[in-house]
Amino acid sequence: MRGYNFYQRAKGAFHDHPTVTKLLVVLSVSGGGVAAFSDARPFQFGYADAAHDVKKKKVVVLGTGWAGTSFLKSLKDPSYDVHVISPRNYFAFTPLLPSVTNGTVEARSIVEPIRSIVRKKKFDVHFKEAECYKIDTVNKKVCCRSTQENNLGGSEEFTVDYDYLVIAMGARANTFNTPGVVEYAHFLKEVEDAQRIRRTVIDCFERASLPTVSEEEKKRILHFVVVGGGPTGVEFAAELHDFVNEDLAKLYPALKQHVKITLLEAADHILNMFDKRITEFAEEKFQRDGIDVKTGSMVVKVSDKEISTKERSSGKTVEIPFGMVVWSTGIGTRPVIMDFMKQIGQTNRRVLATDEWLRVEGCDSIYALGDCATINQRKVMEDIAAIFSKADENNSGTLKVDDFKGVIKDIAERYPQVQIHLKKNQLRNFLQLLKSKDGEDELNIEKFKQALAEVDKQMKSLPPTAQVASQQGVYLADCFNRMDICEKYPEGPIRFRAAGRHRFRPFRYKHFGQFAPLGGEQAAAQLPGDWVSIGHSTQWLWYSVYASKLVSWRTRLLVISDWGRRFIFGRDSSRI
Amino acid sequence: MRGYNFYQRAKGAFHDHPTVTKLLVVLSVSGGGVAAFSDARPFQFGYADAAHDVKKKKVVVLGTGWAGTSFLKSLKDPSYDVHVISPRNYFAFTPLLPSVTNGTVEARSIVEPIRSIVRKKKFDVHFKEAECYKIDTVNKKVCCRSTQENNLGGSEEFTVDYDYLVIAMGARANTFNTPGVVEYAHFLKEVEDAQRIRRTVIDCFERASLPTVSEEEKKRILHFVVVGGGPTGVEFAAELHDFVNEDLAKLYPALKQHVKITLLEAADHILNMFDKRITEFAEEKFQRDGIDVKTGSMVVKVSDKEISTKERSSGKTVEIPFGMVVWSTGIGTRPVIMDFMKQIGQTNRRVLATDEWLRVEGCDSIYALGDCATINQRKVMEDIAAIFSKADENNSGTLKVDDFKGVIKDIAERYPQVQIHLKKNQLRNFLQLLKSKDGEDELNIEKFKQALAEVDKQMKSLPPTAQVASQQGVYLADCFNRMDICEKYPEGPIRFRAAGRHRFRPFRYKHFGQFAPLGGEQAAAQLPGDWVSIGHSTQWLWYSVYASKLVSWRTRLLVISDWGRRFIFGRDSSRI
Repeated sequence: MRGYNFYQRAKGAFHDHPTVTKLLVVLSVSGGGVAAFSDARPFQFGYADAAHDVKKKKVVVLGTGWAGTSFLKSLKDPSYDVHVISPRNYFAFTPLLPSVTNGTVEARSIVEPIRSIVRKKKFDVHFKEAECYKIDTVNKKVCCRSTQENNLGGSEEFTVDYDYLVIAMGARANTFNTPGVVEYAHFLKEVEDAQRIRRTVIDCFERASLPTVSEEEKKRILHFVVVGGGPTGVEFAAELHDFVNEDLAKLYPALKQHVKITLLEAADHILNMFDKRITEFAEEKFQRDGIDVKTGSMVVKVSDKEISTKERSSGKTVEIPFGMVVWSTGIGTRPVIMDFMKQIGQTNRRVLATDEWLRVEGCDSIYALGDCATINQRKVMEDIAAIFSKADENNSGTLKVDDFKGVIKDIAERYPQVQIHLKKNQLRNFLQLLKSKDGEDELNIEKFKQALAEVDKQMKSLPPTAQVASQQGVYLADCFNRMDICEKYPEGPIRFRAAGRHRFRPFRYKHFGQFAPLGGEQAAAQLPGDWVSIGHSTQWLWYSVYASKLVSWRTRLLVISDWGRRFIFGRDSSRI
Repeated sequence: MRGYNFYQRAKGAFHDHPTVTKLLVVLSVSGGGVAAFSDARPFQFGYADAAHDVKKKKVVVLGTGWAGTSFLKSLKDPSYDVHVISPRNYFAFTPLLPSVTNGTVEARSIVEPIRSIVRKKKFDVHFKEAECYKIDTVNKKVCCRSTQENNLGGSEEFTVDYDYLVIAMGARANTFNTPGVVEYAHFLKEVEDAQRIRRTVIDCFERASLPTVSEEEKKRILHFVVVGGGPTGVEFAAELHDFVNEDLAKLYPALKQHVKITLLEAADHILNMFDKRITEFAEEKFQRDGIDVKTGSMVVKVSDKEISTKERSSGKTVEIPFGMVVWSTGIGTRPVIMDFMKQIGQTNRRVLATDEWLRVEGCDSIYALGDCATINQRKVMEDIAAIFSKADENNSGTLKVDDFKGVIKDIAERYPQVQIHLKKNQLRNFLQLLKSKDGEDELNIEKFKQALAEVDKQMKSLPPTAQVASQQGVYLADCFNRMDICEKYPEGPIRFRAAGRHRFRPFRYKHFGQFAPLGGEQAAAQLPGDWVSIGHSTQWLWYSVYASKLVSWRTRLLVISDWGRRFIFGRDSSRI
């Protein structure tokens, strides 16, 4: 960056003679002495490209979560002018947030400043700590404001124009409009949330230790309620149980008997996105641990000291007194995204829709990835006529099965559901699918439709996980890196409804499995190929996978030393 | 503790038959199985003392700072019922607070929960997270209220009665009633202060990075003002300078030129409690570093964006725009202590006064130590007649010098200023002092007065440092541990104004030296015997002394790994 800044200054001074710039820079650097030279990054002639005053394309990235950060990390083409806008000046390794709530891992161990992540790039990335509150597609700009609350100045507002916009703002916690949730429950989406939960747990124990607090009140204060039996809720409940039993019970021996953890889930089982075996194991383990799992129980209201749930079995409303509620029931769309969707005509959707290339539907040059968007995958049935006619080169109206050979690869690439369907029905290949119906070798459009009728049922939207967001970020950066070359030599599948090929291959998610830590040094993992692993060894697998996925060597070292510290000294219960 | 709780329960059940209790407990423990036994602490018959229903003396400790914590750590006699009341449930290693402001050390690395500090005691220590707002000496009780701000319940108030009260509440920052300080300046007394300063520094850099901020505004936002040139202020300024130059300059290269650090000091020099050589070195180093040291400059007002100072040299008032002000000008008395002083008649004092045994003057069974109190040392001149008559056993009115031999040791112990005087005047011993005036061997009361006339000038009040507070805590706990034995066999000096001896030796402070870290891996140290050490090696001495003084192995390991992490990866600039 030093080299680049220097270059910029030099450029300003010798603006009228661009041809001498390169020479002058080289001279200045060598004139700066050997010491200075060894400190600076090796001088790169690549920078000189910018000297020709080609206006760089301005890429604005909204958000520094998994999607935004992996995009920034993978972006290599220095011909973009990159601007990042986010209310947080760091990237947080969110899968470890439940560990932060109890001090198994420190908050600072899982964050890395976005500026230091992008610092080693060959081009400048401009970061602005602000929140985008409006996307203006007509004038191609975003409206932002500073989120700081201090006496440094008023609420600073500014706009940033873009050539390409990458929306990676994530989602907000979904309250399902349940009254009282925002006021009285804790969410678990941000680092600050996790820190606040940690303080509140200690607050509960300290308050219950005061001499004037009645036994009944103690029970209320030490009742921790977790709403939502998904991986986050389950992990938090398990971590809290460990924290209470391994550490706090020693320091607050008189209170241990009063502590109760309840996990509320509206569906019939917790962890219902996992294999049945995992669900059963988790439910049994929680029962043994004394964590009260209440399934079929929908929260209808939260007040300052009570949570009201409606039990599906009895239809009755039950009031549960609590000391702390953690709300973890999935994600909702941010207001700014809702507003943006109205603007671009996606009014009857709940989530921002993109195509398979992560381009926002109905928008040019706007991309969306991560939790704030969903890929609206194209159905085979929508394009069925176009596909048939592409294969039917001589417009005969009927085709032999073998005639499809030319477009099979493109069909598989454009419609990933086809391959899932083949796999599920144990068919060798696409040709077998076409043949299977009645053994005939010749197809007309109707028969072709029949053969593919079931295929679109295999479409599934991607889960809102770090894994998806991160892969999308890498994919999109890769597209940006090869924008020009792929314009000339498109690498995507045939456009069935138009001429030519798509510029890029569509995004394809690769699932590496999912963990559910269950406390007591045990975890469950569902890995690709229906492989389920549960127990202590899985916890060690979890440790090694998470350590390897951390964003930098600094965070890696810190998280590992946090784990070590916890093993030796336990978790800290100071209220800071 | 497990053993004790169990005992308590057993005691409740078998209250009418105290003699069988011991037997029953032993039986229950052995019946509990080998596993349980090995987990529990070895059964101690010492606990059985309490069985005889001797009412334990209730010791209430207010505060968990250096004084309170070192008292608790050193208290060993299990015959007390110990209650601790503090708004913080942890002890903080405050000398490292300046390091926390810039992330050289993490906040959590320097704190240890008070419950875990006292957990390994043979007796229970009851902690209550609350603030004492009134000391009622008449009814021997303290009035407390919970300081939590959350929805766990209202502001809980309660009273705790005491037999002995140990006041170790520390002090508050002294604003000298300067307007605007409380509203707009940061203090550096608590862990939360240090965390807030850290966030504010990052806020300043992020705000200055926003595109709409003018150059002039950038300069204001990045102007950091430190008020007070004592060790804390100097260390903070030095740490901030390192943070900006070693870490932030890399991440915010465009802003480095705008950063300015100013240190305001009302006196003529910074670090004026240190040796002149240290002051000079520090002032020169700061000048080289570009830290603007303004001496003779008194702050008269702080507003949200400007600080007004009166320059002693010119008498003019200067307005300085700033982004952040840190106020570190010494300590003041807490309101609850002021109120207590009124109650006990110490109205014309600024600080709570105790005698040399740390007993609050005018109070029975109340002790005060650390920053909230000062030892009001007895003058030799006040007792001169009593001393003379004690030596003059046969009431002759004149005494030979050798006749003093019997009370010399007691005089030296009771009036430490005598020994300082001897040392300063290079006298071999007390007898030489008495002789020195005119070589005569016989003294009357007038001549005795003359000989000791200069002695009281050597009295100095102790500095408000961690070192003093900690030694006082250890001393007081030692007195409490030997309360009964010393009642029977007093070990203190002769009571010159009454019969017999004092129960304990008076408190005597032992100075081990003082450090002033100056940034850039350099520190200054003033060690006993006027030994001054400055430079890089002193910084390493500082590292090793501070590491060894930390309260637990956990904090020691954490602080050392924090230092290591800083050397390798630098300081983190995430705004959390």
